[in-house]
Amino acid sequence: MIAIKRLSSTDADFAARLKALLAFEGAQDESVDRTVAAILADVKTRGDAAVVEYTQRFDRLAVSDMAQLALPAAELQAALEGLPAAQRSALEAAAARVRAYHEHQPLRGWQYEEADGTLLGQQVTPLDRVGLYVPGGKAAYPSSVLMNAIPARVAGVGELIMVVPTPGGEKNALVLAAAALAGVDRVFTIGGAQAIGALAYGTQTVPQVDKIVGPGNAYVAAAKRRVFGVVGIDMVAGPSEILVVCDGHTDPDWVAMDLFSQAEHDELAQSILLCPDADYLARVAAAIERLLPTMPRREVIRAALENRGALIQVRDLDEACALANQIAPEHLELSVADAQAWLPKIRHAGAIFIGRYTSEALGDYCAGPNHVLPTSGSARFSSPLGVYDFQKRSSLIRVSQAGAQTLGRIAATLAEGEGLPAHARSAEYRLDPPAR
Amino acid sequence: MIAIKRLSSTDADFAARLKALLAFEGAQDESVDRTVAAILADVKTRGDAAVVEYTQRFDRLAVSDMAQLALPAAELQAALEGLPAAQRSALEAAAARVRAYHEHQPLRGWQYEEADGTLLGQQVTPLDRVGLYVPGGKAAYPSSVLMNAIPARVAGVGELIMVVPTPGGEKNALVLAAAALAGVDRVFTIGGAQAIGALAYGTQTVPQVDKIVGPGNAYVAAAKRRVFGVVGIDMVAGPSEILVVCDGHTDPDWVAMDLFSQAEHDELAQSILLCPDADYLARVAAAIERLLPTMPRREVIRAALENRGALIQVRDLDEACALANQIAPEHLELSVADAQAWLPKIRHAGAIFIGRYTSEALGDYCAGPNHVLPTSGSARFSSPLGVYDFQKRSSLIRVSQAGAQTLGRIAATLAEGEGLPAHARSAEYRLDPPAR
Repeated sequence: MIAIKRLSSTDADFAARLKALLAFEGAQDESVDRTVAAILADVKTRGDAAVVEYTQRFDRLAVSDMAQLALPAAELQAALEGLPAAQRSALEAAAARVRAYHEHQPLRGWQYEEADGTLLGQQVTPLDRVGLYVPGGKAAYPSSVLMNAIPARVAGVGELIMVVPTPGGEKNALVLAAAALAGVDRVFTIGGAQAIGALAYGTQTVPQVDKIVGPGNAYVAAAKRRVFGVVGIDMVAGPSEILVVCDGHTDPDWVAMDLFSQAEHDELAQSILLCPDADYLARVAAAIERLLPTMPRREVIRAALENRGALIQVRDLDEACALANQIAPEHLELSVADAQAWLPKIRHAGAIFIGRYTSEALGDYCAGPNHVLPTSGSARFSSPLGVYDFQKRSSLIRVSQAGAQTLGRIAATLAEGEGLPAHARSAEYRLDPPAR
Repeated sequence: MIAIKRLSSTDADFAARLKALLAFEGAQDESVDRTVAAILADVKTRGDAAVVEYTQRFDRLAVSDMAQLALPAAELQAALEGLPAAQRSALEAAAARVRAYHEHQPLRGWQYEEADGTLLGQQVTPLDRVGLYVPGGKAAYPSSVLMNAIPARVAGVGELIMVVPTPGGEKNALVLAAAALAGVDRVFTIGGAQAIGALAYGTQTVPQVDKIVGPGNAYVAAAKRRVFGVVGIDMVAGPSEILVVCDGHTDPDWVAMDLFSQAEHDELAQSILLCPDADYLARVAAAIERLLPTMPRREVIRAALENRGALIQVRDLDEACALANQIAPEHLELSVADAQAWLPKIRHAGAIFIGRYTSEALGDYCAGPNHVLPTSGSARFSSPLGVYDFQKRSSLIRVSQAGAQTLGRIAATLAEGEGLPAHARSAEYRLDPPAR
């Protein structure tokens, strides 16, 4: 019997129970943070030598030189060519679809000219160089390489540097193949805080990047937080989440498996179902009981469902949408009739999977949109990873001589009001002589 | 005699000297951080009571209740109506221009349908509620209220909450007037880490927001870093900077005053001039000597110029542009002939002021673009504050039954490759029966 929580929105203590269910504190371990601070300082000072030493120690690699930690491009290409045909064509199809979707995303500059010749606008340019962190070991996902690297490439980033630890020398062929497909320029087999330090500060061998993206463990996350400002970083992700809103007419096995697909990630993943139909909730619960023993990762799934999962009865689908906005989930499935009609009610979600055929797994791999999405309710204020994360804007201002007459007087008045007389005088210098 | 550094790009040690000049470590004081952590935890637990106590203590206000710290809307309107006519019309003109510029910025959603009926896209929605921090005392800038609040309003943010400390009960009429003009919904006269905590966690009286923007002191900056993730935050700003690229044909007094206008902000502000003409650099140096004694804020200006200012001779304007990209300044003035022609060479700058009439001060107040800009080289990877910072995207995926057949097979293959069988089965469930 799986002890997944059962809630109803009519429970007297529903608000409190929901709040407890959603609570997740990304504990920032002080000892991890101290270790990371020391590693970063060392890499900043000693560069390659420090990176080589940490890699010897943490990844158990008998290397003496940074050159041994650079992976030749030929090895990426060989990994791609060595894949079984089905895997290679699936990876290529996914890469092509992800690229096609992201090609809709680039920001474009704009400008306009005013009657007096003053021009205003915004220029958009790609980042020069980006670092992509890829975890080693079990959590090494080729799909993640595609999702991080392709938007950077579409943005026109000049150079894309990947770092991936190879503990004990073990390499993941699918990850290397994905790097080849996505067009990564250089790969170093380094990881942990030392890799983040190398990318953020640059070493004799590893070039300094402008932004670091990609998931990692607690050390990597702490290191990214610390170098933020020196370089840009992407969001620091929490556990993965799915919220399914169902009208009670989707095959219960489908919904149970969608909940599993999130729960199998790790014990802290969150799978929640909202439905107005109590009978249907019971049928999904029964499907969970029946299907769980068939799943290879059943222990992880069970732990996640019991820790942070819930089946919640709601009054109606309107209330389900309101709760979805409150939860602001990473993944939201609208598994309802005429799903598109409910879309205008959804304000906060990382990705919205519309209709019964749109299982989250399709979006994770190959529908096209990015699978790097805001977690822990941060969809209230942030967006999926995209091409726009690898571009930035510069304001453009070209004030004509005539424009300087109008604007100069306004600026001077406001600058005096703020007690900044050099600002005022700098504006007044541009006024035509008779007015000075 | 002002000891402003004189460098030449032909100096043997130029690269090292430039690096030292630009170095700025936003020192994160451990004791500030500990104090802030305690205040945040207290506000999170005790809400209003904690905020009232800290406000009594830090702002010396004899208040007993949060209600006394809410500023009635009528008081904002009264502040606006009480302004001298010239100030009011300057503020209104600035607000109108800032609004007009920012109306070019909103992100728009998009979608496309594939041949098999699968729909992909991105939905754009505004944030529900935003908190705007405004410093009290000397650094209370009405222009900053406009620059932070107007983009949020243009984005369609539902509610805009301003916090501004009033140490000793002192209010700044220009700031309140700017809040009225910009359409702020509610104002609380609270500040420091306690105000950040109130906005991030919500209290009995202060509603929880989704994002906090606006400048503040070291305590405010530390608090914003700590609540990041619970809510969104804007960038944490470093000292202000100007880089002037001049061909040697702008009135030296104009350039000197532009350098002053940045330097008068504070002793750590950075003002740098790049020019290929040694004689011109000497004329600007002479103008600095001559004009400085006439400036009310001459002590601050002198300190900033001597600490972090520089007059740098370059080989030519091409080299100046390359250095500008390396420096990635907050403000870049192209004070050269045919300035627009040099624009394509500039990749990294927060705002680009094109041509001799475009003094930075015009952009600070009323040209239209935002004056909240990336500092300390972060223009390499980030953008001016804009409407887009108050909007977020959700991916849209609606896979048709036909689409689920193609995508399901790709996803299942990749999921198996990653060792995630529930993902694979969730995709396979949507395959039509004959194929299962």
